[in-house]
Amino acid sequence: MSHNTLTKIFFSIVFISVSASPLFSQKVNTEDSLMLRKIFDTALLEGKSYDWLEYLSNDIGGRLSGSLEAERAVEYTKKELEKLGLDKVWLQPVMVPKWTRGIPEYAYIETAPGITSIANICALGGSVPTPDGGIKAEVIEVKGIDELEALGTEKIKGKIVFYNRPMQANLISTFSAYGGCVDQRYQGAMEAAKYGAVGVIVRSMNLRKDDYPHTGSMTYGDTPANMRIPACAISTNGADYLSSALKLMPSLKFYFKQKCKVFPDVQSYNVIGEITGTQFPNQYIVVGGHLDSWDLGDGSHDDGAGCVQSMEVLRLFKKMNYQPKHSIRVVLFMNEENGLRGGREYAQQAQLKNETHVFALESDAGGFTPRGFSFDIDDATFTQVKSWAPLFKPYLIHYFEKGGSGADIGPLKNDQMVLAGLRPDSQRYFDHHHAANDTFDAVNKRELELGGAAMASLIYLFDRYGTKKEFTTIKK
Amino acid sequence: MSHNTLTKIFFSIVFISVSASPLFSQKVNTEDSLMLRKIFDTALLEGKSYDWLEYLSNDIGGRLSGSLEAERAVEYTKKELEKLGLDKVWLQPVMVPKWTRGIPEYAYIETAPGITSIANICALGGSVPTPDGGIKAEVIEVKGIDELEALGTEKIKGKIVFYNRPMQANLISTFSAYGGCVDQRYQGAMEAAKYGAVGVIVRSMNLRKDDYPHTGSMTYGDTPANMRIPACAISTNGADYLSSALKLMPSLKFYFKQKCKVFPDVQSYNVIGEITGTQFPNQYIVVGGHLDSWDLGDGSHDDGAGCVQSMEVLRLFKKMNYQPKHSIRVVLFMNEENGLRGGREYAQQAQLKNETHVFALESDAGGFTPRGFSFDIDDATFTQVKSWAPLFKPYLIHYFEKGGSGADIGPLKNDQMVLAGLRPDSQRYFDHHHAANDTFDAVNKRELELGGAAMASLIYLFDRYGTKKEFTTIKK
Repeated sequence: MSHNTLTKIFFSIVFISVSASPLFSQKVNTEDSLMLRKIFDTALLEGKSYDWLEYLSNDIGGRLSGSLEAERAVEYTKKELEKLGLDKVWLQPVMVPKWTRGIPEYAYIETAPGITSIANICALGGSVPTPDGGIKAEVIEVKGIDELEALGTEKIKGKIVFYNRPMQANLISTFSAYGGCVDQRYQGAMEAAKYGAVGVIVRSMNLRKDDYPHTGSMTYGDTPANMRIPACAISTNGADYLSSALKLMPSLKFYFKQKCKVFPDVQSYNVIGEITGTQFPNQYIVVGGHLDSWDLGDGSHDDGAGCVQSMEVLRLFKKMNYQPKHSIRVVLFMNEENGLRGGREYAQQAQLKNETHVFALESDAGGFTPRGFSFDIDDATFTQVKSWAPLFKPYLIHYFEKGGSGADIGPLKNDQMVLAGLRPDSQRYFDHHHAANDTFDAVNKRELELGGAAMASLIYLFDRYGTKKEFTTIKK
Repeated sequence: MSHNTLTKIFFSIVFISVSASPLFSQKVNTEDSLMLRKIFDTALLEGKSYDWLEYLSNDIGGRLSGSLEAERAVEYTKKELEKLGLDKVWLQPVMVPKWTRGIPEYAYIETAPGITSIANICALGGSVPTPDGGIKAEVIEVKGIDELEALGTEKIKGKIVFYNRPMQANLISTFSAYGGCVDQRYQGAMEAAKYGAVGVIVRSMNLRKDDYPHTGSMTYGDTPANMRIPACAISTNGADYLSSALKLMPSLKFYFKQKCKVFPDVQSYNVIGEITGTQFPNQYIVVGGHLDSWDLGDGSHDDGAGCVQSMEVLRLFKKMNYQPKHSIRVVLFMNEENGLRGGREYAQQAQLKNETHVFALESDAGGFTPRGFSFDIDDATFTQVKSWAPLFKPYLIHYFEKGGSGADIGPLKNDQMVLAGLRPDSQRYFDHHHAANDTFDAVNKRELELGGAAMASLIYLFDRYGTKKEFTTIKK
């Protein structure tokens, strides 16, 4: 696009901003409109989240539960929150699992003795190791767990099961495509073991064709320790290659070796900061993300972004001298990826202390352009919340729908509160999710900052117009 | 985000899809809804635009008007269109300007004799060269053209004027931020020359801090040839550095050398393909982008993306055996960036041949996630068009507003037709615009394909429900 169009576009945008105003001024307060403008201005002109993320990503790196990096992240974010002049900052102890990947995994496809090609794999999180010498076996490719029964022990025993059902590219929400595939990763090994498989390869949960294997959690369920088989993810390019090779030579062999290990649980922490409410100090609003990440990349999108956006919400309020009526807490949850211990511990402590939580918002879907929010909410309250949507239109935030919220805040759920999740544009999320390319350079500063501003705006509205209970009271 | 949340999200998405249906089924036809679903499915599952863009970008590269690359792009896209089984494919001759950058530009900041630091610059498109030995002069920094008058000839004469007003980061539309700055680039040299400046440096039109200088068109207006002064863009990091250095040492000198040159106009072409309409073969719908680009990157976002998306629209219709009522043309315009000759020639030929154009859609704002369309349209027709918006909601396309369309289709404008522009997410566009990092790797396959599908959907609706004239007739 050259100079020629820009004047037209410029004026059209001015026109839109102006013409949109009367529409929502009928429904919402001008004061709210100005407050949102101020939040977005402050976030975009004087944002801090990108700098925080740069440190978390490049100076600390991937923050798997129980790792040195996770502990450094706890220390760093606590220190940064303390600089903000909040009313309280503290660490909430929580014991977390410690699983380590060990030395780099190693795999190849052998089409004839000595004729091999490398396969890009990584161990799934929680997998057992292979024997010291690795595993070499024939491969049986399936499109899903449901094919195992028909094949039966006869065809599976002694082999490596290769789950190769791709994410469905025609689904608009990539989370929906992920949801339709991830059973292979999560339960694949447990199910294949029942038929005597010796190992499992899973096609990476990635819509792109590339060479990155994507890790992620898996379960063995009740499988006895001596029956647990190792599981790895293979890159999408690797999966396509292996599948083609199997068509030409069904008897080829796959070799892989991984040295992952489970250690006893270790001490870790949720990091919490609070601005105490002026009117309802004992009613809490939570905004958060998870501080832990997988170990392959530096966890910039999953979920460094959500952490720094949540910290930014409180920083913006302090910067703008906004004094909330409710107590607002940022919670950086530990161990979302492989245990959810932080989210469970926070909810349990809240219950023990009889703390009333009225609203919780999580950002855990990447630092991309915010498209809106999904609300775990009843219909009456949703109607109220949806009436705020026009306030967000000038920021091109249109998506207000009922739906899930976030894993870490899930345990808080009760009938008296609202849970919500930030919904950023999802197209690129699974290009990076749980892989070595979830790195800082894949995050755009403006997109990250718009997300933080959107979150602060929603929290401001909940703080101002009250909780679910109050909505019910207001309702005629 | 781990496995824990996905089931919730998956079901929430299914729920949203189902619950949204009754809303728009009242307004629009189920057949249309199914057609759009088929368009998006085909684009996402069997798309071709990404492959085309890969060739245009990596095998051909930057396609400045009059260059070998531009001619190769004409040849390649014509050949690819011929493979689609369209009714007609042809080249429309157009004479285009030929400006060349010459050998790489070279610049430094000299704080004392022999004490220098490199500055990342590039010549602005259309700039005259410096003298063979380059230019070295003191620098006067301004925030805009309007400061020149107050400074006057006394303070400007013999110096290099440094325009350093940054894009406004708090504007949500980056095009709006661009529109608020680009006068410095377009008219800066012409205005500074009036006060005796010997050269011009312009802060790159980029919201990021990085080391890429961004080129773009400029004008000398009526300035006589011997009064024209050379102009370059400096990277945003370079601009910040220069500005800081000037504060410490206002007498520092800036040296730059560039060897750009204007050649006589050369022959080039618009590339056109057509599916002839079954019912109104003499009424034309145009979809297009511009085939030329600047020379620093490979023009993937600006505007390779728009070209391959436009080609994809016709490919999708052929693939789906959709036979349009109106004749649908893809037009790949030549020379948008520094002349608009292709757009003007197409419109002139249309007028000479008395061709009735009913709708034109341009994609020239990058290959990012489509957010919607802006329409250059009267209010009555806009109401009709806006009634289609619910059809796009399942694809998270919400933006239907009045506004500009595209530079290349602008010359077609008349009262009897509708012009529109695809509006992708704009946050990252100016990170790459006219710079060396406008490259293929910055384009996401899904985002590109979603844009093409959105365009095909809108064209289908215009083809089915008619033109502006027909709307007027239908209106009660």
